[in-house]
Amino acid sequence: MVIPELHPDCRPLAGLLGTWRGEGAGEYPTIESFTYVEEVTFDHVGKPFLRYDQRTRGASDGLPLHAETGYWRPAGPGHVEVVLSHPTGVAEVLEGSINSGPITVFDLHTTSVALTSTAKSVTRLHRRFELEGDVLRYRLAMAAVGQPLTHHLSAELRRVGEDSPTR
Amino acid sequence: MVIPELHPDCRPLAGLLGTWRGEGAGEYPTIESFTYVEEVTFDHVGKPFLRYDQRTRGASDGLPLHAETGYWRPAGPGHVEVVLSHPTGVAEVLEGSINSGPITVFDLHTTSVALTSTAKSVTRLHRRFELEGDVLRYRLAMAAVGQPLTHHLSAELRRVGEDSPTR
Repeated sequence: MVIPELHPDCRPLAGLLGTWRGEGAGEYPTIESFTYVEEVTFDHVGKPFLRYDQRTRGASDGLPLHAETGYWRPAGPGHVEVVLSHPTGVAEVLEGSINSGPITVFDLHTTSVALTSTAKSVTRLHRRFELEGDVLRYRLAMAAVGQPLTHHLSAELRRVGEDSPTR
Repeated sequence: MVIPELHPDCRPLAGLLGTWRGEGAGEYPTIESFTYVEEVTFDHVGKPFLRYDQRTRGASDGLPLHAETGYWRPAGPGHVEVVLSHPTGVAEVLEGSINSGPITVFDLHTTSVALTSTAKSVTRLHRRFELEGDVLRYRLAMAAVGQPLTHHLSAELRRVGEDSPTR
């Protein structure tokens, strides 16, 4: 198939394209701390958004832990909108800034969190990504199950593959 | 890799597993009618949800049109919750019934629609899927851009591949 050209609106996000792998650590006041391995893919189809697909597995047992999938869409200079689905019944809409430099920072806050009836109560998230060449670090804070916005996850990933749209 | 066993909670959704292809037609009071080709994949990782990934292309030019991705999670007997992300800045939370039979009907209504700042105003969706062996038909109605809940999409897909979790 023909690999489409990146939509010009997506240039501020171009450094995210590819497949990323690494390790992370999770903690929260209501649970035991844990470590995980993660794989994230950002790809595109030539339209003004990137596809985002993330999965984590337990660091020791390799069993699937979390997953999330969605889209990043540029929304004017230095601004990005992100829509994510979680299999736990959470839909997350985030907006935030892109600060490009030797380290490019994407700083995203939820503007809406929508939940299914049986989902745990997640009310607010803050995601900060730092992109430095082939290294992507992130931190995630979450307000959930009655807790205020509290650090939950941090991970460092390395790019392991180029962007390769498959369809 | 080891293909995980389907989580028992997912049995009412088992008939959806696989890759589906077919054609659909779209209409809405505010746009020109159009036809499209579609590919949908439902797969699983052994946890109590199915992953859902959908893409459409123009029937004549083959160019990417819509896409959506998310998760279907069983939520008690005859009930399912669905969380979807759209690259247009729309997050969709649906809930509804599963009526199993020679034709199994999934009848889903949005309980929440969350939008990014630059998204078009979508306020409500109704999705009805009919599963009959290797045929999957759906109809989608949408309230958006000031219009009431109005028929928007219908398609008929055929199963072209088995469930094949890749990671």
